[in-house]
Amino acid sequence: MNITKPTLLIDENIVRKNIKRMTERAKRFNCELRPHFKTHQSQRIGEWFRDYEIDKCAVSSLEMAKYFFNAGWVDITVAFPLNILEHTTVNDLAGKIKLNLCVESIETVKALNDFLEHPVGVFLKIDAGYHRTGLAAENYAEIQSILEALESNHLITIKGFLQHAGHTYGAKGKAEIDEIHAYTTEKMIKLKDYFIKKYPDIIISNGDTPTCSVSENFEHIDEMRPGNFVFYDVMQAEISSCQYEDIGVAMSCPVVAKHADRNEVIVYGGAVHFSKDRIEKDGKTIYGLIAEEKENGWGDPISGWYVKKLSQEHGTIHVPDEAFDQIKIGDLLYILPIHSCLTGNLMSKYYTLDGEEIEMFRYNS
Amino acid sequence: MNITKPTLLIDENIVRKNIKRMTERAKRFNCELRPHFKTHQSQRIGEWFRDYEIDKCAVSSLEMAKYFFNAGWVDITVAFPLNILEHTTVNDLAGKIKLNLCVESIETVKALNDFLEHPVGVFLKIDAGYHRTGLAAENYAEIQSILEALESNHLITIKGFLQHAGHTYGAKGKAEIDEIHAYTTEKMIKLKDYFIKKYPDIIISNGDTPTCSVSENFEHIDEMRPGNFVFYDVMQAEISSCQYEDIGVAMSCPVVAKHADRNEVIVYGGAVHFSKDRIEKDGKTIYGLIAEEKENGWGDPISGWYVKKLSQEHGTIHVPDEAFDQIKIGDLLYILPIHSCLTGNLMSKYYTLDGEEIEMFRYNS
Repeated sequence: MNITKPTLLIDENIVRKNIKRMTERAKRFNCELRPHFKTHQSQRIGEWFRDYEIDKCAVSSLEMAKYFFNAGWVDITVAFPLNILEHTTVNDLAGKIKLNLCVESIETVKALNDFLEHPVGVFLKIDAGYHRTGLAAENYAEIQSILEALESNHLITIKGFLQHAGHTYGAKGKAEIDEIHAYTTEKMIKLKDYFIKKYPDIIISNGDTPTCSVSENFEHIDEMRPGNFVFYDVMQAEISSCQYEDIGVAMSCPVVAKHADRNEVIVYGGAVHFSKDRIEKDGKTIYGLIAEEKENGWGDPISGWYVKKLSQEHGTIHVPDEAFDQIKIGDLLYILPIHSCLTGNLMSKYYTLDGEEIEMFRYNS
Repeated sequence: MNITKPTLLIDENIVRKNIKRMTERAKRFNCELRPHFKTHQSQRIGEWFRDYEIDKCAVSSLEMAKYFFNAGWVDITVAFPLNILEHTTVNDLAGKIKLNLCVESIETVKALNDFLEHPVGVFLKIDAGYHRTGLAAENYAEIQSILEALESNHLITIKGFLQHAGHTYGAKGKAEIDEIHAYTTEKMIKLKDYFIKKYPDIIISNGDTPTCSVSENFEHIDEMRPGNFVFYDVMQAEISSCQYEDIGVAMSCPVVAKHADRNEVIVYGGAVHFSKDRIEKDGKTIYGLIAEEKENGWGDPISGWYVKKLSQEHGTIHVPDEAFDQIKIGDLLYILPIHSCLTGNLMSKYYTLDGEEIEMFRYNS
């Protein structure tokens, strides 16, 4: 393929391996897998999941739910607090598919009861420790009153409790991921046990790629909703959710300038291509890692090389002395993104290693 | 207009005021204004500039140059180090418009000389202190050799020296902006004086919104290329390039959850809508400011309110006690972006206050 500008490459073999591994884990834990499609946001990549018998998914917006409905997905959870302003889209989708929504306040449930015209499943969004959003897992009284408000609506099926342990993204290694997993799981189990008699069909749905990738105890978890695992990225490799060889996407960026005096190479590839997510490592702020070139695709990160700075279109790459002179203007560098969800969202198109174009969802289109 | 999801609003009156003010400044300084269109990235907003007799622009990629050529712009500078891999696009555009390119190495000039088929103007990208990229302004020997390599090609017109004082974005107030401006301007003038006899037509082209917005001495600067000024944003207001009332775009985001225990409100509006640019202020990290609602549009930031965290679709807003209870689920909040260039790029659509849709450039489309 003739790459001339920042291009997001996808290695289908790695991605399929990642999907296969997660489906096998879910089977082993006797857990339903409802992959979150907000990472790849692509109907085409969604099809790859079907090859592993996945027939349900999670998305992060009603618009994205419509996009995947248009590709034949008919069992979709919108894993985001219901935005009551989008009631038209809710009714539109609820009339056509098995749509699951998330609520976390009585105000939202009242609004939902007012506008809902078709059957939906409803999860209570639970905060089991991340403290981004959701009902505190200990707040049985409020949870009870919301369950009762939902019960009063014959169009609503109470699905259960949904949580996302996003704080695992800040973990340092498997031990810390497992610790968070144990802590949040205990809270979710207590919660389910408390309500199971009255609501025998409720389930626990867990998100977050790190625990779903490495933790072993899912005995009482009914459903997994990881998303990032399909591609992984530098952030996930650094917290040991995956190996670097599991990263399924890489940017290819042209070298446009060199600054030997400060060991910096400038690539065409900036914040509008990568996003500005970053990690701190060995006292350095890192916006991406440069991967070695292989016969077909990329390999592991090259030690000592990293993306040091990003502005709108410029990427500043630190390159050690010994390698600097080998780099030529017009070379293409493979760059592993810090956060593949945001990079994919910005690039809005993938290219397989055979140069095949893969379209994806576009907000506002 | 019926807003139901994160929506980027544009106040045409403010934007036109910003354009008018900058054209008047340029006139007053007897300076050519070549606005950088990478901020708005919209053919339609480009038309607004024509009302102020602007007939040339700068862009940040050859693709964006094509986009504006398609809207009738025929004098375009690609203010980015030439990416020699895009030689086909260069020749395609050079055959149709007055295209100016930037070079900063002899390797790039050699490649350009090899593939160029039509006349182009060429600027030398100069580093006058920002140290992102460009030829060191003191490096006369290398600059000389590049000028000679350019001279040897009859298709090339040497335009002069182009610099971007991007370090003004880190300035704290006008004094610091002026200091940087004086320092970089002195270097640029020395450089021009050194080569003017041999190249009587060379000019100095300066970028960066802060100096173009507030500095007063442009006596020896021939051309201004500010971009962000068209919208401004929180970052620019904080470094005093503008007043808050000059910010021409705001996001409108629905409230989806409330957390009274920690004074946090969750809006539908996250990193995929705003980008993750941030500022540090009073020991806080801020991803956006909430503006008061006015009869038609938004006003100044509300003191004590700010965007505290952004994940993919969630925005976490800190709201002081006294205001907290007034906020209802389903309310829309006006949020001023930290960096309007990146927010516009992500939203890829604007809506005027009358609800009129404004399309913009999309990478990879």
